[in-house]
Amino acid sequence: MATEPGEGLVAGGPAHSIHFDIFTLFPSMFCGPLSESILKRAQEKGLLSVALHDIRAYTTDRHHICDDTPYGGGGGMIMKPEPIFRAVETVLTRPPGWQLPPEDAFVNLPPWDPEAPAPLPADVPIILLTPQGRRLNQAIVTELSHFSRLALICGRYEGVDERVRTQLVSDEISIGDYVLSGGELAAMVLVDAITRLVPGVLGYAEGAQQDSYSPGLGGLLEGPQYTRPYTFRGEQVPDILLSGHHGHVARWRREQALLRTLQRRPDLLQMVNLSEEDRAFLRRHGWQPAGREETDADKEERI
Amino acid sequence: MATEPGEGLVAGGPAHSIHFDIFTLFPSMFCGPLSESILKRAQEKGLLSVALHDIRAYTTDRHHICDDTPYGGGGGMIMKPEPIFRAVETVLTRPPGWQLPPEDAFVNLPPWDPEAPAPLPADVPIILLTPQGRRLNQAIVTELSHFSRLALICGRYEGVDERVRTQLVSDEISIGDYVLSGGELAAMVLVDAITRLVPGVLGYAEGAQQDSYSPGLGGLLEGPQYTRPYTFRGEQVPDILLSGHHGHVARWRREQALLRTLQRRPDLLQMVNLSEEDRAFLRRHGWQPAGREETDADKEERI
Repeated sequence: MATEPGEGLVAGGPAHSIHFDIFTLFPSMFCGPLSESILKRAQEKGLLSVALHDIRAYTTDRHHICDDTPYGGGGGMIMKPEPIFRAVETVLTRPPGWQLPPEDAFVNLPPWDPEAPAPLPADVPIILLTPQGRRLNQAIVTELSHFSRLALICGRYEGVDERVRTQLVSDEISIGDYVLSGGELAAMVLVDAITRLVPGVLGYAEGAQQDSYSPGLGGLLEGPQYTRPYTFRGEQVPDILLSGHHGHVARWRREQALLRTLQRRPDLLQMVNLSEEDRAFLRRHGWQPAGREETDADKEERI
Repeated sequence: MATEPGEGLVAGGPAHSIHFDIFTLFPSMFCGPLSESILKRAQEKGLLSVALHDIRAYTTDRHHICDDTPYGGGGGMIMKPEPIFRAVETVLTRPPGWQLPPEDAFVNLPPWDPEAPAPLPADVPIILLTPQGRRLNQAIVTELSHFSRLALICGRYEGVDERVRTQLVSDEISIGDYVLSGGELAAMVLVDAITRLVPGVLGYAEGAQQDSYSPGLGGLLEGPQYTRPYTFRGEQVPDILLSGHHGHVARWRREQALLRTLQRRPDLLQMVNLSEEDRAFLRRHGWQPAGREETDADKEERI
């Protein structure tokens, strides 16, 4: 495909159900996260399906070798191209839900042409999880949630042969600036974040919540939340939350969210739609908007 | 504790083995990720141990309730403070490895004082995984890898009662600017990233690799890597990697890493130690260092 990460593919429309093909050397890593909570319910509702594909099953040599030493020397092993290409091209030229029967692994693989690319569906992103990818945020999650089928390739982080990037992959994603042992946890994060946006997966209340607080989508960090008991070890719920005055409660929550974002992640404030009231509140708490000098009005406002 | 996130705790020294106490409503989510690959080997070597604690087991009411509606109204449920405090205080006042016997869940809990804080060990960070936390990077991972025991509390992302933050937690961490269903996947990410830094967990080659490429620690993104076959679908390994000239290979790799970082994550270049040679190379490829104007020398260099 040889597109730049994130370019070239456009989703057809809002997905009503979503299918993930996950390519990994460690399929059993996924058992717990997919069997609990929201992902479990989404599968039971028919809104989510996941097929795990063991890359190793697509090797035909006696030792089932999936990695090899790097050209040019150096430490670490590199994932070989052929097993990844064979696995991805075999699966994606078949309907969603297809899996290699376990008894066919290694010994009875469907025919595959090592010399020529298979005709892959144009509307299925093929995503490599890698520290070199674009850094995941809620805007990317939203973009990906519009596809009805996605392929995720879990690199082991010593590296993947470059030709997987140049010829097979259409997107590369990193979940953050830290080093993991492999792409598997990153794939689970992506499945979880995307699946929550599929209509019907979350109940109404949860869905509404998520719209208000989406870091990366221009949201603020959430402020303090309280539930019973009213007093816990001498610390009471703020009176305003018991006032019954919806407007005051909403304003207090907005201000607490502004304050927490200012204290912890001021970078996010640049992406938020702020009202004049918000700006005045923030300035009173020491905010200096990036990109312009503090005016005298700002200084007067900050008492 | 009421410290600001990340303040107040100092590790004793480099950890030789590390113990995680993980507090969650979904302990079985962890089965796969902890049973494979590097985390499995680390546990077998005695370098890692993980105790999963079901927060629900620390409730004493008939319905085992762990959440309740928020004061002030609004959607979503909030995790109640008492079960979390009871679980964390019970476990952390006992030696690493202690777990509530399953048959004692709900019915035979150790005594606990709801009115007064338990004396918690000063050298165990109590980390809440939450979108409101400081955003994880490799520098934070390194900092946390020096502790020999850590407690991780998995919030469900509708929210945790604020008093958990103000009275119990010593640090709050977010793995990225996206919304997840809960803190469990974030906790797994943290366990994986931290454990790889414990001496002896990785082999030498892997360890060396990781030092060179640590986004967030001032590293560059890794450039292209190749393994056999030499030619795959017409695309060959770059000649330089077969030259046998270590100096040229090293310089090529450095330049490829600079180029990829420039193209994909130019923000990282501000945190990297760049030589004059690096800077000249980057300028020839269009780099304009932030914070200063392009000089005539830059323009001449960019042919």
